[in-house]
Amino acid sequence: MTSRRFETLATVADQPLTSPDADATRAALERQTQLTKPPGALGRLEDLAVFMAGWHGTALPRIARAQALVFAGNHGICAQGVNPFPQAVTAQMVANFRAGGAAINQLCRVAGAELSVIDLDLDQPTQDFTTAPAMTEAECLEAMARGAAAVDPTADVVLLGEMGIGNSTVAAALAHGCFGGRPEDWVGRGTGSDAAGLARKADVVARGVALHGGQDAMQILRSVGGREQAALCGAVLAARAARIPVLLDGFICCAAVAPLFKARPETLDHCLIAHQSAEAGHAALARALGKQPILDLGMALGEGSGAALALCVLRGAVECHSAMASFAEAGISGG
Amino acid sequence: MTSRRFETLATVADQPLTSPDADATRAALERQTQLTKPPGALGRLEDLAVFMAGWHGTALPRIARAQALVFAGNHGICAQGVNPFPQAVTAQMVANFRAGGAAINQLCRVAGAELSVIDLDLDQPTQDFTTAPAMTEAECLEAMARGAAAVDPTADVVLLGEMGIGNSTVAAALAHGCFGGRPEDWVGRGTGSDAAGLARKADVVARGVALHGGQDAMQILRSVGGREQAALCGAVLAARAARIPVLLDGFICCAAVAPLFKARPETLDHCLIAHQSAEAGHAALARALGKQPILDLGMALGEGSGAALALCVLRGAVECHSAMASFAEAGISGG
Repeated sequence: MTSRRFETLATVADQPLTSPDADATRAALERQTQLTKPPGALGRLEDLAVFMAGWHGTALPRIARAQALVFAGNHGICAQGVNPFPQAVTAQMVANFRAGGAAINQLCRVAGAELSVIDLDLDQPTQDFTTAPAMTEAECLEAMARGAAAVDPTADVVLLGEMGIGNSTVAAALAHGCFGGRPEDWVGRGTGSDAAGLARKADVVARGVALHGGQDAMQILRSVGGREQAALCGAVLAARAARIPVLLDGFICCAAVAPLFKARPETLDHCLIAHQSAEAGHAALARALGKQPILDLGMALGEGSGAALALCVLRGAVECHSAMASFAEAGISGG
Repeated sequence: MTSRRFETLATVADQPLTSPDADATRAALERQTQLTKPPGALGRLEDLAVFMAGWHGTALPRIARAQALVFAGNHGICAQGVNPFPQAVTAQMVANFRAGGAAINQLCRVAGAELSVIDLDLDQPTQDFTTAPAMTEAECLEAMARGAAAVDPTADVVLLGEMGIGNSTVAAALAHGCFGGRPEDWVGRGTGSDAAGLARKADVVARGVALHGGQDAMQILRSVGGREQAALCGAVLAARAARIPVLLDGFICCAAVAPLFKARPETLDHCLIAHQSAEAGHAALARALGKQPILDLGMALGEGSGAALALCVLRGAVECHSAMASFAEAGISGG
């Protein structure tokens, strides 16, 4: 039975949602026509600048503070042999993040993002979702609350990433649970599954969703998701409340927030997909979420690595938009 | 008649070319297997890091100094009405670059590149290539020399961009002259041509290449190219001599160096294509050059704008490669 508190807090269907500012959006669109470039010549950068203007509520958005959040969790589903690495690697990689040795550390330095790593009860993996719900309602809510609490309300953009041995299987289960299709459509190689591993992952996903599927979106999250997935949902909701745009990393971040989309698609209106992951299911997942990834570099690392690179593009977009001269200012002849 | 000096200097077929360092390349590939990530998980970033290692001659490449060069020229072909903007805009945009008001200024600031703008005799447009060779051999050589002289031999990477009213027509003529196909295949909207403008550009390209085509690659460069195209070729050759990797911007930069490729394809081995331009002919041109653009953001501005954004990806690649911890250093369990 579902408690009233879980329904109220976790299903987002009847929560008020912030919106982009219509005046700022209009003013930003008007400004784009005056900048010293042919109309449309900055392509996606123009759309990104107008998007940022709307959410920031100003015609001249800037990115002074970019916050990168990496959530880490462990997963009972690893008991089914879905990952060639031992679960201890999750904590080892968290230590690597804290020591500055991982890819995300280097990419945050390049992109100018401030990195925080939040490890979620790594010594208490979730339940094996082929036999029981991965999390109790209380566990799911707590993880969501920790995700929400991690968001700095003064950030201009929040980058989301994750780490968790086994979580490409968790992601496939969330995508399958939320969007249907065949389990095989959502299963990929993750950190290094071979063909037998892929088949095992598809079987696990099929069994998990068969056991827990057909429920509402937030029940899917707690039944086959993990703590870092719930935390990502909480962070997305907290960012939305503060009208902070979000860069979702790749396959696992997108799958993590799929339950929010299933509950109410416009919940993700403030989110961008940073990059097209090489993980097999990501192209279909991005289409299901109705979003075009910014980058496509064949990456499939997680950690927020694609989000950090996409931040450079977002910085370029807002800097061009907010700092370029107009035709009048530069004294450029009209066409 | 072709002078011996032009043949000797400008045709690159028999010049010695530098090569990437095989030992550094091997060491970089080996290092990639030891970094704290699944093999291949950084996708294109891994290839870029190994590429940089080879050209820099070290297993641990860094980008301390990124030089952005924007060459500007004017074109006699504008007499044929190929561009809706007046030629005066070239000098006005050069002034805008110098005042810091253009897109490239903002993007160089974001990416950490040092911008230099080189205007090439803007008050002396080239000849209308439908009636005469655009440049004399001496003019072409001088522009190549100015491009070569602009390259800082201490740079770790050189970004190339351009500005020149009418130069998308020049680019289409170079691509058609070097790679054949139909004129229409290479003609695009540039800074804002309508359907009639496109047809006019295709006609101009057809007539120019019919008049001057069938010659060797460097004669094509001087006959239908412009000063900024010749300067871009000179810069690419100078960077190669100094083993400095190059980020070519988009359609116009790629077309500018097409004669170098036609003369000897490996001349461009040290060059990357920064982004897939929205300009119609660029996808085919990138394929003809055998290179996969790094970004695809629907941009078609020129100025080196795509190159500046791609520099962020290149920085990410070398920083991950050179600064990440190894599995042994981080104490991560093997798979």
